[in-house]
Amino acid sequence: MDVSRKYAAEFIGTAFLLATVVGSGIMAETLAGGNVAIALLGNTIPTGAILVVLITMLGPISGAHFNPAVTFAFWLRREIAARDGLIYVAIQVAGGLAGVWAAHAMFADDIFQASAKIRTGGAQWFAEIVATFGLVFTIFATIKANEKAVAMAVGLYITAAYWFTASTSFANPAVTIARAFSDTFAGIRPLDAPMFIVAQFFGATAAFIVCKWLLANGKDAAEAG
Amino acid sequence: MDVSRKYAAEFIGTAFLLATVVGSGIMAETLAGGNVAIALLGNTIPTGAILVVLITMLGPISGAHFNPAVTFAFWLRREIAARDGLIYVAIQVAGGLAGVWAAHAMFADDIFQASAKIRTGGAQWFAEIVATFGLVFTIFATIKANEKAVAMAVGLYITAAYWFTASTSFANPAVTIARAFSDTFAGIRPLDAPMFIVAQFFGATAAFIVCKWLLANGKDAAEAG
Amino acid sequence: MDVSRKYAAEFIGTAFLLATVVGSGIMAETLAGGNVAIALLGNTIPTGAILVVLITMLGPISGAHFNPAVTFAFWLRREIAARDGLIYVAIQVAGGLAGVWAAHAMFADDIFQASAKIRTGGAQWFAEIVATFGLVFTIFATIKANEKAVAMAVGLYITAAYWFTASTSFANPAVTIARAFSDTFAGIRPLDAPMFIVAQFFGATAAFIVCKWLLANGKDAAEAG
Amino acid sequence: MDVSRKYAAEFIGTAFLLATVVGSGIMAETLAGGNVAIALLGNTIPTGAILVVLITMLGPISGAHFNPAVTFAFWLRREIAARDGLIYVAIQVAGGLAGVWAAHAMFADDIFQASAKIRTGGAQWFAEIVATFGLVFTIFATIKANEKAVAMAVGLYITAAYWFTASTSFANPAVTIARAFSDTFAGIRPLDAPMFIVAQFFGATAAFIVCKWLLANGKDAAEAG
Repeated sequence: MDVSRKYAAEFIGTAFLLATVVGSGIMAETLAGGNVAIALLGNTIPTGAILVVLITMLGPISGAHFNPAVTFAFWLRREIAARDGLIYVAIQVAGGLAGVWAAHAMFADDIFQASAKIRTGGAQWFAEIVATFGLVFTIFATIKANEKAVAMAVGLYITAAYWFTASTSFANPAVTIARAFSDTFAGIRPLDAPMFIVAQFFGATAAFIVCKWLLANGKDAAEAG
Repeated sequence: MDVSRKYAAEFIGTAFLLATVVGSGIMAETLAGGNVAIALLGNTIPTGAILVVLITMLGPISGAHFNPAVTFAFWLRREIAARDGLIYVAIQVAGGLAGVWAAHAMFADDIFQASAKIRTGGAQWFAEIVATFGLVFTIFATIKANEKAVAMAVGLYITAAYWFTASTSFANPAVTIARAFSDTFAGIRPLDAPMFIVAQFFGATAAFIVCKWLLANGKDAAEAG
Repeated sequence: MDVSRKYAAEFIGTAFLLATVVGSGIMAETLAGGNVAIALLGNTIPTGAILVVLITMLGPISGAHFNPAVTFAFWLRREIAARDGLIYVAIQVAGGLAGVWAAHAMFADDIFQASAKIRTGGAQWFAEIVATFGLVFTIFATIKANEKAVAMAVGLYITAAYWFTASTSFANPAVTIARAFSDTFAGIRPLDAPMFIVAQFFGATAAFIVCKWLLANGKDAAEAG
Repeated sequence: MDVSRKYAAEFIGTAFLLATVVGSGIMAETLAGGNVAIALLGNTIPTGAILVVLITMLGPISGAHFNPAVTFAFWLRREIAARDGLIYVAIQVAGGLAGVWAAHAMFADDIFQASAKIRTGGAQWFAEIVATFGLVFTIFATIKANEKAVAMAVGLYITAAYWFTASTSFANPAVTIARAFSDTFAGIRPLDAPMFIVAQFFGATAAFIVCKWLLANGKDAAEAG
C-alpha cells in the first residue's frame, strides 16, 4: 500500500472524530435546554459510536491512531518509525482542525474560533493522565487479547471515560489542540491545552511501561500458538 | 435467488427504516415534554438499532441498500446494473412511503400529510454532503476492511451522524422523500427536499471518488489473499 | 439433553425478561420526574440489553423463545412439535408471572396487582401486528442470514420497536399476560390483553407466510453450501 | 504466565471498574440537575461499557473476575484454588478502594469518605440476591453457550440490572465495600454493606447450584462435538 493512503486515512479519521466530538457537542448543548447531563449523553453516544466505525474501517489502512499519544506509544514499542510517527502527528492535528471547522460550517457558526472554556487544575490533569493511561492500556491489552475487538473496546472505553474522568477524557493531543479552536460545548481554552497534552503523554508512557510487563511475551506466545 | 425477492427485501427494509425514523420521532417528541435533546435520543437509538437489524438480515438477499444514494454509488462501482438500480430506487421510495404511512397509522395520525418543517440553507446542504459522504465512505471502507461489520458500522455511523450534522443526517433520498410526507418530528418541507437530495448524491459521488483511490486494489488483494 | 432443562431455560429466561421489563419500568418511572421519554429510555435500554444476554446464553438450551408467538411461528415451520410447543407456552406464561412478582418484591410493591392502564383501539392493535410481524421476521431472516447474530438482532429490534410502535411493542402473549398483573409503568389492563394477543398471533402468522416465500430454500441452500 | 500478572490484572480491572462506577456517578449526579433517571443513565452506560472493555482485555490474563462473589462461584466449581481465590478477593477489595480514591481525586473531592446513603431492608436484600444470581448465571451459562460473548453479556447484564433491581445491582462484595467509602451517588452506608454482601454470596451460591444442573455435561459435550 502506498504511504499516502495511510496519511489520508489518518486525516479523514481524525477529521470525522473531531467533527463528531464538536458537532454533537453543539447539537446536544443547543437542544438540551440547560440539562448538561443530557447534553453530555448526546455528546458521548455519537463519539463512542464513530470511534468504532472509524477504527473498524481505517484500522487496516493506517492503524487508526487518530491520536498523537497513541502514535507515541506505538513508537515506544518500536512499531512505528520516528519519521513516520511525526508525520502521523502533524496529519492528526491538521485533520482534527479540518473536522472542527467542518462542524462549525455545518452548524453555521463562525469557522475560526478560540475556546474560552477553562479546564485546568491538578484534578483535571490527573484525570487526563488516568484517561490516557486507560486508553493506551485498552489498545495494547485488547490487541493482545483479541485484536478484532479493538474498535469496539476503544469506542466503549471512551464512552465510559467521558463520564468517569472529571475532564470528560480528551486523552488525545490532536483532539485537545483542535478543541481549543472551538468556543462550543467541547472547547478548551488554548491556555489550558498544553498541560492537558503533557498529562496525556505522561499517561501514555505509564501505560506503555505497565503493558510492557503485564503483556510480556504476548506476541511470541500468540505466534507460537 | 429470483429477482423479486431482492426487490421485496428492499421494500420491506426501507419500510421498516422509515416506520422507525418517523414512528420513534412521533413517540419521542410526544413524550419528551419539550426537551428536544431527549426527543432526538429517542429518535437516534431506535434508528441506529433498526439499521443494524435490517442490514444484518436483508444484506444477503438484496445488499440492504434502502437508499438511492447508496444504490447510485454501487452503480458507479459497476456492482449494480443501471436497470436494476433504477428499480431499486423506485422500490426504496415506495417502501419509504409505506413505512411513513404505517407509522402514521400506528400512532392514529392522519395517513397523508405534508411536512411544514423548514430545513434549508447552505449549512444544512453542506451537512447533508458530509453526512452522505460519511455514510457511503463507511459502507465501502468497511466492506473492504471487514465485510461482516458493515451492519454494525452503518448503524453506529447513523447514530453519530444524527448528532454531528446540523441536518440530523438524512443522507438518503428515499428517506428524504418519505419524510416530506410526514408533518411530525422527522419531517422536511417538500420544497426543501430537492436540495437535500442533490447534496446527498454529491456526497455519495465524492465518497466514491475518494474510496476508489483510498481502497484501490482492495478487492483484488483480498481475492489474491 | 434432557427435556426438563429446556423447560427450565424457558422459565428462567421469561422470568428475567419480565423482571427486567417491569422492574426497569418501575425504576425509570419513579426516577424520571414525570418525563415519560426519559422513563421509556430507562425501560428500553435494559430490555434490549437483557434480551441479548438471555438469548445468547439460553439459545443453545431451549431456543430462547420466551414468547408464545415465537413458539407458534416455529410450530408453523414444523420446528417444534405441538405438544412441546404447548408446554413451552404454559411455561412462558408461568415464568413471566414469576418475573413480574419478583420485580414487585424487589421494589417492595404489592406482589399481586392488576393493571389499570388502558391500551386499546385499532391503532394499538395495528401497532402490535407490526411489532410482532417485525419480531418474527427478524428472528427467521437473521437465522438464515447469520444465526450467530440472532441474540443481538432481537435485542436491537425490540430497542427500536419500543419507540416506533405506538404500543411500545409488547409483541409477546406471555409478556402481555404477565404485564396485566402489574399496575406499574409497563402494565396493561387485563381487559385489553386479549386483543393484543390476537394481534400478536396475527402478526406472527403474517411473518411466517412472508418468510416462507422470501427465505425459501434457505436451509437447503445453506446445507448444500 | 507468572502469577503476579494475574493479580495485577485483577487489581487494575477492579480499580477501573470502581473508578467508573463512582466517577460516572459523581459526574452524572452533578450534571443531571436533580433528574435521578438521567443521572442513573449517565451511571449505567459507562459501567456497562467499561465492563465489556475490562473483561475483553483482561479475561485472558486473570479470568477478569473483579468480584469476590464470582471468584467464590469459580471456587465452588473447583476452577480456582482456595488460596488463589482468597488472594483474588483481597486484591479485588484493594483495587476497588484504589479506584474509588482515584475517582475522588479526579473530581477534586476528599479522598477518604464514608457513605451516608441508606440501602437496607428485605426488598433491597432480595434485589441483591436476584442481581448476583443473574450475574453468576450469566457468566456460567454464557461460558458454556459462547465463551467469546462473555464480556458483552456481562456488560449488558449489568446495564439491565442497574434498572431492574431496586438496589441498582451492586452484585459484587468488592464493589460494595469500595462504595461504602464514597459519600457520592454510588455510595452505600458502611452499616448496610454486610447484609448486601451476605445476599450476594447467597445469590452466587444459588446460581452455582442451578447452573450445575442446567449446564451439566456441557463441557464434555462441547469437547465431544
